[in-house]
Amino acid sequence: MLITLTTDFGLGEYVAQMKGVILAINPEASIIDISHNVRPHSVREGAYVMYSATPFFPFAAHVGVVDPGVGTERKAIVVVCEGAMFVGPDNGLLIPAARRFGIKEVREIRNENVFRREISSTFHGRDIFAPVAAHLSLGEKVATLGPVLQDWVDLDFGLYNQRGREFIGEVIFVDRFGNLISNISGKAVLDAYKWGDLLSIDIDGKDYVAPFVRSYGFSRSHKLLATISSSGFLEVALTEGSAANHTGATEGSSVRVGSKGGEAK
Amino acid sequence: MLITLTTDFGLGEYVAQMKGVILAINPEASIIDISHNVRPHSVREGAYVMYSATPFFPFAAHVGVVDPGVGTERKAIVVVCEGAMFVGPDNGLLIPAARRFGIKEVREIRNENVFRREISSTFHGRDIFAPVAAHLSLGEKVATLGPVLQDWVDLDFGLYNQRGREFIGEVIFVDRFGNLISNISGKAVLDAYKWGDLLSIDIDGKDYVAPFVRSYGFSRSHKLLATISSSGFLEVALTEGSAANHTGATEGSSVRVGSKGGEAK
Amino acid sequence: MLITLTTDFGLGEYVAQMKGVILAINPEASIIDISHNVRPHSVREGAYVMYSATPFFPFAAHVGVVDPGVGTERKAIVVVCEGAMFVGPDNGLLIPAARRFGIKEVREIRNENVFRREISSTFHGRDIFAPVAAHLSLGEKVATLGPVLQDWVDLDFGLYNQRGREFIGEVIFVDRFGNLISNISGKAVLDAYKWGDLLSIDIDGKDYVAPFVRSYGFSRSHKLLATISSSGFLEVALTEGSAANHTGATEGSSVRVGSKGGEAK
Repeated sequence: MLITLTTDFGLGEYVAQMKGVILAINPEASIIDISHNVRPHSVREGAYVMYSATPFFPFAAHVGVVDPGVGTERKAIVVVCEGAMFVGPDNGLLIPAARRFGIKEVREIRNENVFRREISSTFHGRDIFAPVAAHLSLGEKVATLGPVLQDWVDLDFGLYNQRGREFIGEVIFVDRFGNLISNISGKAVLDAYKWGDLLSIDIDGKDYVAPFVRSYGFSRSHKLLATISSSGFLEVALTEGSAANHTGATEGSSVRVGSKGGEAK
Repeated sequence: MLITLTTDFGLGEYVAQMKGVILAINPEASIIDISHNVRPHSVREGAYVMYSATPFFPFAAHVGVVDPGVGTERKAIVVVCEGAMFVGPDNGLLIPAARRFGIKEVREIRNENVFRREISSTFHGRDIFAPVAAHLSLGEKVATLGPVLQDWVDLDFGLYNQRGREFIGEVIFVDRFGNLISNISGKAVLDAYKWGDLLSIDIDGKDYVAPFVRSYGFSRSHKLLATISSSGFLEVALTEGSAANHTGATEGSSVRVGSKGGEAK
Repeated sequence: MLITLTTDFGLGEYVAQMKGVILAINPEASIIDISHNVRPHSVREGAYVMYSATPFFPFAAHVGVVDPGVGTERKAIVVVCEGAMFVGPDNGLLIPAARRFGIKEVREIRNENVFRREISSTFHGRDIFAPVAAHLSLGEKVATLGPVLQDWVDLDFGLYNQRGREFIGEVIFVDRFGNLISNISGKAVLDAYKWGDLLSIDIDGKDYVAPFVRSYGFSRSHKLLATISSSGFLEVALTEGSAANHTGATEGSSVRVGSKGGEAK
């Protein structure tokens, strides 16, 4: 069975330790890195990365470790879904991705027989989550891991507001290109506008005008544009440049989208 | 069959989506990352990376995605070679690598049966190139993908000039160590000079003197040297330092190499 | 058989060439990246990364390439251990990790039949170490590689000093989070102090007070703390921040730990 890893560790010795632990338990495990470049301690960015990537995989155990509360009493959980399992800390990291699959049950991981023998207080990714995923990949039954939880830490990307053709939301992710991914539904914007419409876009109180286009290539070089991100959200981008640098926006910046009353030339 | 990936996405959620798509189609596919650190939108740097790495692999489908024109009318192509296949955009990215293997034919990818069902306008890497490579790895015949193209976008690393023992070219790649890889044939320089000769090297109009040495270790610490890169080009390096920082050179900087009329001490 | 790679190349075309060479020799080889983000030319940091990660793996050939002396007369070696083999340059890089497994013998690699046919002077990782590991993974006998060495380049992380409850050592690694990993035994500190004790910590001559805690979560936000790293060393960290930025410490900074005579509140 496939195991994927998403962490804020960088691709280095910590991730390697997790892979070593998995392969020592199941030498046949197939391990795929989703990302290890999550901003350190940013549970929400990690949640977005898992939300964005996991639906494309065949059945897998998806391990997530962005875990500022490691070593305190925060629980370790496994989330069982249709078509996927998620393993990680009970801090909301796994929930948006799991909800996309449909959550069947959440269990607390308590069965120490599937942990590494020595458990450090600083690295549950290696000592708990990796071995649990490895045992699941060998066919370990989820029910043996621990009791069903009725309550767990939730996380969503915030609700956006829509009033007629006006949308108010926020930036939830800035990708490597400086593209700004908002929490506004791309489909909702496409219902309200058509390709080529000029939008008025307010980011953190600064006003911009940008065409709503099907893809980056349809806008002129170094001009702001609005499009639908590959994960389905409204995205603000700058052709051959960085919208993040251009606008100064970061994760959490406010985004308001309205009509500019014209068509792109 | 092996599938390699070269992109400018960084190793994160976008690459993971491509891998998920591939594994959902062919769970047995073996996927190797060549690089995801190509400078965003730099088709030429991506072309150099693929040129440099792909010849070392056994038979594989090499997917390249540095694709500033995604979503416009630029074509998607597969290049069939002796010992390799290349899949990506028709913008020159695949051509220098493919030419090293010997191009047998280039086909436009048109058969939508091998695409993902929903195709975003911004991410053909995931929606077209990855599934095409996955289907090829399952034995899909290239001929079913689309018609043979007589004409495609070419790219080379520029021609260098040689006049006697003088060579004029440019920097085509700066690696992680700050080594400057030029487009000048290392073999041609080795025909004109011998190891230990002192070279006069002009980079963007600034003059340097550097010994022509077999490897980094033969020069003194923090001194400029000329050598032959592991990909066969004339390379300018700084022992235990960065030639890029030392000279200010970047991709595209001019390089002129001549005789200094002496031997390194 | 598993092959792991640790280099200072960055995850790009150089590492890809090594993987291509391995897969061309043994298409069934399973290759895991330990880290390619070792600081360029830092043999000691590479040694720490291999020391830290390799013990978690099942039997593997661990290839290490941090090799400022490539192309000079430094030897290529294979280190045979209980439960692991190490392949790389004779510059100390492999030794701390190998010593953790128990060194059975060290051999110089001389048998050119297992090298790539053309050997560049600048890239033994690709031309010697990768093919040697690939041949070992196919069952090649170590004895065929070359003669046993009685003497090789050693490297350790420096000895720390203990006088009663005072420990004097140095920073051997700064991780991605800015955590400072010292060479002081975490176990020795735990014998001298108990969880919750306040420690006096002197870093490069600057004095700090920090609680000795089981894990990051037990300290207040943005406060310095001392803990035991996941690799077993005394570690100085800053909850939700970077101890390296806070203290200005780097690899090699001095660390003195003593009693502050109180308990953390």
